[in-house]
Amino acid sequence: MTGVAASDGPDASARPNGTPRRRGRPPRTESAGTRDRILAAAREEFSERGYEKTSVRGIAKSAGVDSALVHHYFGTKEQVFEAAVEVAFAPALKARDTVLDGPLDEVGERMTRMILGLWENPVTRAPLLAIVRSAVNNETAAGVFRRLIASQLLRRIAGQLDLPDAELRAELAAAQLVGIAMIRYVIKVEPLASADPEEIVRRVAPVVQGHLTRP
Amino acid sequence: MTGVAASDGPDASARPNGTPRRRGRPPRTESAGTRDRILAAAREEFSERGYEKTSVRGIAKSAGVDSALVHHYFGTKEQVFEAAVEVAFAPALKARDTVLDGPLDEVGERMTRMILGLWENPVTRAPLLAIVRSAVNNETAAGVFRRLIASQLLRRIAGQLDLPDAELRAELAAAQLVGIAMIRYVIKVEPLASADPEEIVRRVAPVVQGHLTRP
Repeated sequence: MTGVAASDGPDASARPNGTPRRRGRPPRTESAGTRDRILAAAREEFSERGYEKTSVRGIAKSAGVDSALVHHYFGTKEQVFEAAVEVAFAPALKARDTVLDGPLDEVGERMTRMILGLWENPVTRAPLLAIVRSAVNNETAAGVFRRLIASQLLRRIAGQLDLPDAELRAELAAAQLVGIAMIRYVIKVEPLASADPEEIVRRVAPVVQGHLTRP
Repeated sequence: MTGVAASDGPDASARPNGTPRRRGRPPRTESAGTRDRILAAAREEFSERGYEKTSVRGIAKSAGVDSALVHHYFGTKEQVFEAAVEVAFAPALKARDTVLDGPLDEVGERMTRMILGLWENPVTRAPLLAIVRSAVNNETAAGVFRRLIASQLLRRIAGQLDLPDAELRAELAAAQLVGIAMIRYVIKVEPLASADPEEIVRRVAPVVQGHLTRP
């Protein structure tokens, strides 16, 4: 099933949604456009309904395509979810490298700014909400969360610390930020829900730094 | 609808589930037993399914009573949820007074032990899971969470601090503990999921204390 979007082989003209190919636009670009539209719809649906209540059919309807096309590009619902989460998570993984790059005595502030930045931006907030909502309710989604957040984010940060308890440190630091996200963006408890992000960084970055590097 | 369970008036013998009254046992005790059984079933159902997917009918079935009896004692599904959460939250409110009672320079450790204690105990963990699962997915449940946790727990702790930013401090402290609960008990990311609770207290109590009282 994979690779069809990028195919230039003899079947490239057998367009799954039956629309006529426009002139001067290669199939790769148009397929990528459709794929992106499905992914955007998937992010929206998973965000609003959570993993369990989202259906491939609902995603297809929201993207204005046939369900078969969703299956064609992504496979099962779980695979659409993984793809949506991975796209949503791309800015975090990019930002992760920024977190890893600077001096170690400012890693707490960089990690705090990265996480708050992802939640403050509506484009990345929606899929994060989707991940959180889905992960607390569904074991499949929790597995995706564990794999992406734990392995790709926390373990990489822990690797930079070069301490025997680095993973526990990274998780306690992450816990502070996950809890803030829960109270501020998910449950929306005041006054934290309306607090100035810079005020939060000022109060929280030293805590995150302490978890990561304090002896 | 309220007060029937405690009634000793002329209608006290009109038993809603039609079972014969046993000798030597006042109706108040037996009604309380049925009410408690329904509440326990409600906690279980809300915990397993979350607010949205739980039905009064499912609670009634699990408690071995008729749906009408659930409505009779509690009213709507939202009211059953509130009652279940309040019962689940009773140990927290009792523990809250312990948190408030001791010296202020140990409030961080007391708060940390209280929250970890509630999550370590399977009896209180199930309803906490129910609250978290429901609150992230449903605005009604989030409202119950805000009212109970924010108003009854955090604001009371904040009141003891006697600082202008006490509520924000209490929420940032709570955020550290909420995040640990999410990572350890809900998503179950290792190594935090299997860490010794005393090790967590040792690392986290100073952070909670810092949020609450550091200048």
